[in-house]
Amino acid sequence: MTTFGESHGIAIGGVLDGCPSGIKIDFDAIQKELDRRKPGQSAIVTQRKEPDTVEFFSGIFEGKTTGTPIGFAIRNTNQKSHDYSHIKDSYRPSHADYTYDQKYGFRDYRGGGRSSARETASRVVAGAIAKQFLSTIKINAYVTQVGKLAMHKHYTELDFSLTESNPVRCPHPETAARMQQLIKEVRKEGDTIGGVISCVIQNVPVGLGEPVFDKLHAELGKAMLSINAVKGFEYGSGFEGVKMKGSAHNDQFNPDGSTKTNHSGGVQGGISNGMDIYFNIAFKPVATVIQGYETIDKDGNMVQTKGKGRHDPCVVPRAVPIVEAMAALVLADFTLLNRTIKL
Amino acid sequence: MTTFGESHGIAIGGVLDGCPSGIKIDFDAIQKELDRRKPGQSAIVTQRKEPDTVEFFSGIFEGKTTGTPIGFAIRNTNQKSHDYSHIKDSYRPSHADYTYDQKYGFRDYRGGGRSSARETASRVVAGAIAKQFLSTIKINAYVTQVGKLAMHKHYTELDFSLTESNPVRCPHPETAARMQQLIKEVRKEGDTIGGVISCVIQNVPVGLGEPVFDKLHAELGKAMLSINAVKGFEYGSGFEGVKMKGSAHNDQFNPDGSTKTNHSGGVQGGISNGMDIYFNIAFKPVATVIQGYETIDKDGNMVQTKGKGRHDPCVVPRAVPIVEAMAALVLADFTLLNRTIKL
Amino acid sequence: MTTFGESHGIAIGGVLDGCPSGIKIDFDAIQKELDRRKPGQSAIVTQRKEPDTVEFFSGIFEGKTTGTPIGFAIRNTNQKSHDYSHIKDSYRPSHADYTYDQKYGFRDYRGGGRSSARETASRVVAGAIAKQFLSTIKINAYVTQVGKLAMHKHYTELDFSLTESNPVRCPHPETAARMQQLIKEVRKEGDTIGGVISCVIQNVPVGLGEPVFDKLHAELGKAMLSINAVKGFEYGSGFEGVKMKGSAHNDQFNPDGSTKTNHSGGVQGGISNGMDIYFNIAFKPVATVIQGYETIDKDGNMVQTKGKGRHDPCVVPRAVPIVEAMAALVLADFTLLNRTIKL
Amino acid sequence: MTTFGESHGIAIGGVLDGCPSGIKIDFDAIQKELDRRKPGQSAIVTQRKEPDTVEFFSGIFEGKTTGTPIGFAIRNTNQKSHDYSHIKDSYRPSHADYTYDQKYGFRDYRGGGRSSARETASRVVAGAIAKQFLSTIKINAYVTQVGKLAMHKHYTELDFSLTESNPVRCPHPETAARMQQLIKEVRKEGDTIGGVISCVIQNVPVGLGEPVFDKLHAELGKAMLSINAVKGFEYGSGFEGVKMKGSAHNDQFNPDGSTKTNHSGGVQGGISNGMDIYFNIAFKPVATVIQGYETIDKDGNMVQTKGKGRHDPCVVPRAVPIVEAMAALVLADFTLLNRTIKL
Repeated sequence: MTTFGESHGIAIGGVLDGCPSGIKIDFDAIQKELDRRKPGQSAIVTQRKEPDTVEFFSGIFEGKTTGTPIGFAIRNTNQKSHDYSHIKDSYRPSHADYTYDQKYGFRDYRGGGRSSARETASRVVAGAIAKQFLSTIKINAYVTQVGKLAMHKHYTELDFSLTESNPVRCPHPETAARMQQLIKEVRKEGDTIGGVISCVIQNVPVGLGEPVFDKLHAELGKAMLSINAVKGFEYGSGFEGVKMKGSAHNDQFNPDGSTKTNHSGGVQGGISNGMDIYFNIAFKPVATVIQGYETIDKDGNMVQTKGKGRHDPCVVPRAVPIVEAMAALVLADFTLLNRTIKL
Repeated sequence: MTTFGESHGIAIGGVLDGCPSGIKIDFDAIQKELDRRKPGQSAIVTQRKEPDTVEFFSGIFEGKTTGTPIGFAIRNTNQKSHDYSHIKDSYRPSHADYTYDQKYGFRDYRGGGRSSARETASRVVAGAIAKQFLSTIKINAYVTQVGKLAMHKHYTELDFSLTESNPVRCPHPETAARMQQLIKEVRKEGDTIGGVISCVIQNVPVGLGEPVFDKLHAELGKAMLSINAVKGFEYGSGFEGVKMKGSAHNDQFNPDGSTKTNHSGGVQGGISNGMDIYFNIAFKPVATVIQGYETIDKDGNMVQTKGKGRHDPCVVPRAVPIVEAMAALVLADFTLLNRTIKL
Repeated sequence: MTTFGESHGIAIGGVLDGCPSGIKIDFDAIQKELDRRKPGQSAIVTQRKEPDTVEFFSGIFEGKTTGTPIGFAIRNTNQKSHDYSHIKDSYRPSHADYTYDQKYGFRDYRGGGRSSARETASRVVAGAIAKQFLSTIKINAYVTQVGKLAMHKHYTELDFSLTESNPVRCPHPETAARMQQLIKEVRKEGDTIGGVISCVIQNVPVGLGEPVFDKLHAELGKAMLSINAVKGFEYGSGFEGVKMKGSAHNDQFNPDGSTKTNHSGGVQGGISNGMDIYFNIAFKPVATVIQGYETIDKDGNMVQTKGKGRHDPCVVPRAVPIVEAMAALVLADFTLLNRTIKL
Repeated sequence: MTTFGESHGIAIGGVLDGCPSGIKIDFDAIQKELDRRKPGQSAIVTQRKEPDTVEFFSGIFEGKTTGTPIGFAIRNTNQKSHDYSHIKDSYRPSHADYTYDQKYGFRDYRGGGRSSARETASRVVAGAIAKQFLSTIKINAYVTQVGKLAMHKHYTELDFSLTESNPVRCPHPETAARMQQLIKEVRKEGDTIGGVISCVIQNVPVGLGEPVFDKLHAELGKAMLSINAVKGFEYGSGFEGVKMKGSAHNDQFNPDGSTKTNHSGGVQGGISNGMDIYFNIAFKPVATVIQGYETIDKDGNMVQTKGKGRHDPCVVPRAVPIVEAMAALVLADFTLLNRTIKL
């Protein structure tokens, strides 16, 4: 998977290489995933309108993948209509403006350029294809925390079919309603707030993951940490698990190789053990706030500026399909690699 | 960096390729790092004795790296003296015995084989060389939590020179003493306990990290998650940061490009911004407990077994040099890559 | 460099990643290279008309590369107007129809699909950018043989500015005229003929190439062998050099490190030595002949068929810019890699 | 496959990663391949004595591969006994002394260091394992030319079991005798001579090779060109094929998918078609001659020097097992990759 594209350039897109031949492509399912991520879909996300229609250039013939690279692009429809004077000459706090300029010498400052989360739309496209390849594996991400408001439910108590029933994408309707209320309040203040997404992967065959550097959870962690605004990743018992003793933390076996508990989170020694994989991902509050702030320009002068435009008060609802897409890509890679392991 | 080797095979080792020529190698410093990781160094770690002496085969001439691959090995000195009957035919809970067998069809069961943390000695060797390459960058890892016992100190309040003053490797002597006491108690019970390691990287130049998939913190996260027993990774404000609002979380600039706060943890958009990088890593309790337990054999029969040998009651003290080594390897890679970024 | 696209799909294109920031892009120069490769440019190549206009999606801002991936595509303008019934159900001899079907289970049969040389247009785009990055390095490819008709001139006797003066792209006008005549005769017969392209690279700095597997000439060889219809690669003294004795073949040094002869072809031990790099590439006769032939269909039945359409009687004139593009990409990679070699 | 090691360092060796589990290892067969490459085996190769005994560190358990990295080393037994004063301060013509010094700033000058063909012993070890993995595929390399003395026999006329019957490794005894005579004469002159090795690969399944950049013949070509002293590679009809017309060069199909002729050399569109793969490799005359010569030192002064030691008058007899090893490694990689191609 390779992606290209800046937020307000001509187009974003990517090339998905190494995709096996013979996968029947459901184009509607791909568009549906894109729609889950797109701006303007509900009252609690940014009100920008971007259609996000993907065009496939290659690698699919008569409705099936051919095994050759799948090239695709999503046009940036409104890239010329903006006024960027407020970011061209200044560095927004906690954005990548400063680091891109320092690293590359200059930057495409329009809408955040390459550092914009718009790039993740390409991942959603590729992930949607990976999901179709994996078919029997079920990947469900959902919002478990917004700000300090956390849903204290074990995933086995949840009905994932409710995730899409509310704009927050929390499968617990009561909590979802409270989260939605909180996000609206934050938006009214011109502020933003962070959140946590959880992801559960079920029906994973035993054996996925490549020790020692490319452990299954290490690649999942890298994939999640590569998503904009992510600050942390934990799987299985995670940071809470450090408080436990080994005798309590160990997952005792059943005769069929499954385990009585699952503190391991479905991975042992970097290899899936057939139990459910589950992990949490921390997202920081969006850096673009409407409130005014003081910052520096290229020459180090302090300048007064103000957030503009229509930004997300909370990123997690729209990040749910991105998390699922990245999980699908990682699992697809390991599924293919796992075919080469035995004589 | 490539590694090879099983816990009780002939030798473990690796090849460090792409190391620049002209680095003056301090062999004592490498051995010192190995000694920090080796078993038997204090009363609170495993009492096994392994000398862990590294032999370099290539890539170093007249005391300096030549730019060609550095091959090295550490002999496993006591690989023939053990009795493995208790693990040969049964799967230890929360170990990789079962997943390796399922993935590869069979496994080197002696001492955990490839899944043993002994493999990390090779990483320590390579990391020690990476540290010598980086020289001006300071990497300090230390223990911040053992079980529920956490040190609530910001890293700026700590004196890193105290980390090695106690066997726990916690730079706060009072907390270290209490942690040491806790580990001894756990060991007496024949049990184990988890912990958290924190790592601070200072004097990092602006510009390290490669968007979008190979962000600096994503590669650091993957590197840490690839270490045995790691269950979570967070950097900067991490999981706590999700509770904050953007207006408070944003790091306001000083005129020189540094920031007044550092919730970002030294990375913006996947690229280092020149501020300190800091992150936390969760380690689960060691799975090998001395207490007896019931588990399954290859045929799915329940068998009664018992932990054997001299294992670590808590992994974090010995994992500190491994964390530093992996951090050094990631930073070395990005330092070299960053030379290719501009015309 | 990643490419995608089938001959008669929606578009071909690619992503050029790792391109340094700050390269001023000359779009006309890119189009000029594409025009050198495009069909219909002279009487001795295929008369198909394809405009081959490239659209850049990303990675270039205000006329300069930004250091982010450069995505681009070339639309296939006439992909719907063809009749493929003659290849859909039969395998053309010495084409990739049979092997693609066997490997992938089915294929995009329109115009050869992914196996068509049309894919090389994407390489020409990327190579044109690489040329602009290399700027001081001069890459000149030209035709030295068509069928049995060879130009027996050492490259130092040639004026490369004459290469584009004739449709064969042979810088020796007399030989060019005879080659052109030969190609016309072959075309009249409904047949095709092979040829040899030579390439000379000048002003190469000492030090490019990565021993031992990624030697400079090994990567050049792979790059050339990956071009459609290529059957052989030799550099420096090549296959003729095997007849020589070491005492005659050895290139004696001048005091400045240059050599009196250059049988080595500018590479020693896989690393450029600062002398001119030169190599020859063998192209087989194009497999698509107009003459009728018998072949098999998918079920192994013998079927009578006939070459169709407007194909190249000789591939080498149009392959000259492809050879230069691939050489530029290899040199650009090694130029960047070479920045990481020393402390 | 990664290798390390200098000619006169402590050891050479490598790590073979990604090798499937469950391959029964025949250690005698590995040693036999090493013996075919080692110095001192006959009157027409160098008379140096090096035992070349390989030690395996990991990845093999109870006689079978475990799927984990196979680390190994071959000790350099006589690395301390040499006098290098004649090369330490001067650059031998047509060796890599000059380019290594220029690239890396300094070099391990003992016996050629990393640029020595001694490194290829590691490839022979890995290739011997790859051969055991491939088992049904037959790889036969042999000498077809020494200097101007060429064997004009098609490979189908040869009995490969005769290759090892003579020290030249030419399966045509009469030609072998004449080649042996020629090499002896050249050695007497204190000179060296080049040669050609041919390689035939039989029983290759249809479908190996990954278009478009990693075509089967492109990877084979790169692998061969990475061997020391190689100057050219051609497969199938090669450089001779350029003289043919398409109507004669095309390989017509039989009903079973095989072809009546095999100008293609077993590869179409970069993918094996099930026919025999065959190719030729040009080796330059060994650069180390016993005759005296003038060359430069590090400061550009002309110095008089003299070849020393016991070097090969002709490299091709000992290069035969290296060619086979590299072919086996390429085919093993593509065999594994090919498992991931279809749904």
